[in-house]
Amino acid sequence: MILPLEFQFIDRYFKQLCRSEALHLSDDAAIMSLNTNEELVLTTDTMTENVHFFKNDPVDFIARKLLRCNLSDIAAMGAKPFGYLLNLSLPTYCFTHEWFEKFTDGLSIDQKLYHFSLLGGDTTKNLHNMTFSVTMLGKILKGQALRRNTAQAGDGIWVTGTIGDAALGLLSLKKEIEWNQNLVNRYYLPQPRIELNLNHIASAAMDISDGLLQDLNHLTRESRIGAIIYKNKIPLSKDAEKLKKSYFETIITGGDDYELIMTIPVNKEKIALEESKRSKIPLTKIGYCKKDSNYKVQLLTEDSSQLKLNKMGWSHIE
Amino acid sequence: MILPLEFQFIDRYFKQLCRSEALHLSDDAAIMSLNTNEELVLTTDTMTENVHFFKNDPVDFIARKLLRCNLSDIAAMGAKPFGYLLNLSLPTYCFTHEWFEKFTDGLSIDQKLYHFSLLGGDTTKNLHNMTFSVTMLGKILKGQALRRNTAQAGDGIWVTGTIGDAALGLLSLKKEIEWNQNLVNRYYLPQPRIELNLNHIASAAMDISDGLLQDLNHLTRESRIGAIIYKNKIPLSKDAEKLKKSYFETIITGGDDYELIMTIPVNKEKIALEESKRSKIPLTKIGYCKKDSNYKVQLLTEDSSQLKLNKMGWSHIE
Repeated sequence: MILPLEFQFIDRYFKQLCRSEALHLSDDAAIMSLNTNEELVLTTDTMTENVHFFKNDPVDFIARKLLRCNLSDIAAMGAKPFGYLLNLSLPTYCFTHEWFEKFTDGLSIDQKLYHFSLLGGDTTKNLHNMTFSVTMLGKILKGQALRRNTAQAGDGIWVTGTIGDAALGLLSLKKEIEWNQNLVNRYYLPQPRIELNLNHIASAAMDISDGLLQDLNHLTRESRIGAIIYKNKIPLSKDAEKLKKSYFETIITGGDDYELIMTIPVNKEKIALEESKRSKIPLTKIGYCKKDSNYKVQLLTEDSSQLKLNKMGWSHIE
Repeated sequence: MILPLEFQFIDRYFKQLCRSEALHLSDDAAIMSLNTNEELVLTTDTMTENVHFFKNDPVDFIARKLLRCNLSDIAAMGAKPFGYLLNLSLPTYCFTHEWFEKFTDGLSIDQKLYHFSLLGGDTTKNLHNMTFSVTMLGKILKGQALRRNTAQAGDGIWVTGTIGDAALGLLSLKKEIEWNQNLVNRYYLPQPRIELNLNHIASAAMDISDGLLQDLNHLTRESRIGAIIYKNKIPLSKDAEKLKKSYFETIITGGDDYELIMTIPVNKEKIALEESKRSKIPLTKIGYCKKDSNYKVQLLTEDSSQLKLNKMGWSHIE
């Protein structure tokens, strides 16, 4: 008997992405265990056509961004990725060997880069558009996960890398600003900060997916504190620096950064900077936490006047 | 500040579905641990509009079927459900309190029935149609998971419940046969066989989601054996019995049964039937496994002649 197309694709493209826990994808479930000193961290993200990517975006980049959004959540908890389950909901025109080869090539590259594997999944047809989900599992030593609700007044506020590049890359892709390959690359391929080990150093952490301001505001609300950050301290790439005069609001409210935002007690700053050097992941202090019963985020300019913005950030459903 | 709509829905509808592992959905990840004698079983299923359900199907039934497809995979491994991550990709018209209330009411009912909780999720808009995924986690004692590749020649082939009702229910919904509420109910709300404890009794198991014949063929291929099953032994509901003359092929190749198919060594049959009685889940022997290097499934009529069919079962992508 010839296998249905669904199982041909599983055999040819997905089995190679698995380790033993996936049971060769022969059952409908994977089985895994944990060491007694470990906990499991679980996160999931969905990406859908014309909301999170465009129909003609490179298929391997869509695959990698899907993994990297989830890896960024794993990094924000201070965990290490272990494996993932993959949901593909695809129009008929995707069911070609060319499409599956390219998509799984993308998955394979990032599995090798970040050391994890496929645990299972489900592929179905979709009558209208592409929708993808990944549920990612990470492991961490018990009790060491970084949370959002543990920042303290007085802690510094730090971010990795540079802010706003992806949002500007999206403007470039949409031809609203001049073409800029560096910025477009940042939109297509975020850099999950898995290598940075800030357990026992950061007091709280999360990743920036919906814009610096909005995500920092999640952290302040959860931690029941306020925050002050300084416009001129927000780290920008050379490309973003050139655009900041007209696009500063986009830079700090646009989505897709996938950098980490952390609070670090002042007495841990030195060791944090050493870890930044070791991991080659830049860390920049942009402000500090303070008592504030409204849990507000204030953005100050050089002369300490407060910037007002039209919106805080990006919503996935509005 | 007023929370974006996304977070209002999370606060109002999803937090109540969680236990402590979900960290009140305040972080982008959940944290869980296992006892040293436990393993984790992981499975995922996607449902998309006009492929797995219709736009106007009751929203709470869509939610429950989504959970139950996954629960059925957990049951097939002999595990107990623990929690799930939920991906919703929804058109704008779904973002109402009415829709979310009805959907989460459905989730809540089945969480209580089958004793598990929400661990996390992601809600995004979709420009075209509804697509849902659930990734379900179950727990099982180490080394006890039931697999598909462990059936032996000589073992009996058994199924739970009755076969074909859901496929006939779909025909009824599509008005291809007379309206039949019992059959439609079976299509909308499969009965995951979580209560049946066949660890140490069944030699292999899987659930029937793509049709009895095709799924049994998966099991024979994975176990590298053949199978003989008897047409007159396949358990049918009273409603299906009336339709079997014209729709027998639908009954054994149609999808959505979510019954279990198991192989049971002859010396374990008595204890299996005791477990059937205890759990109130009917078990019926429909045939047996035999040596066959082609891993074929043969379907025999009363006079032992072999039935030929046009197709083996249902594919999610063709």
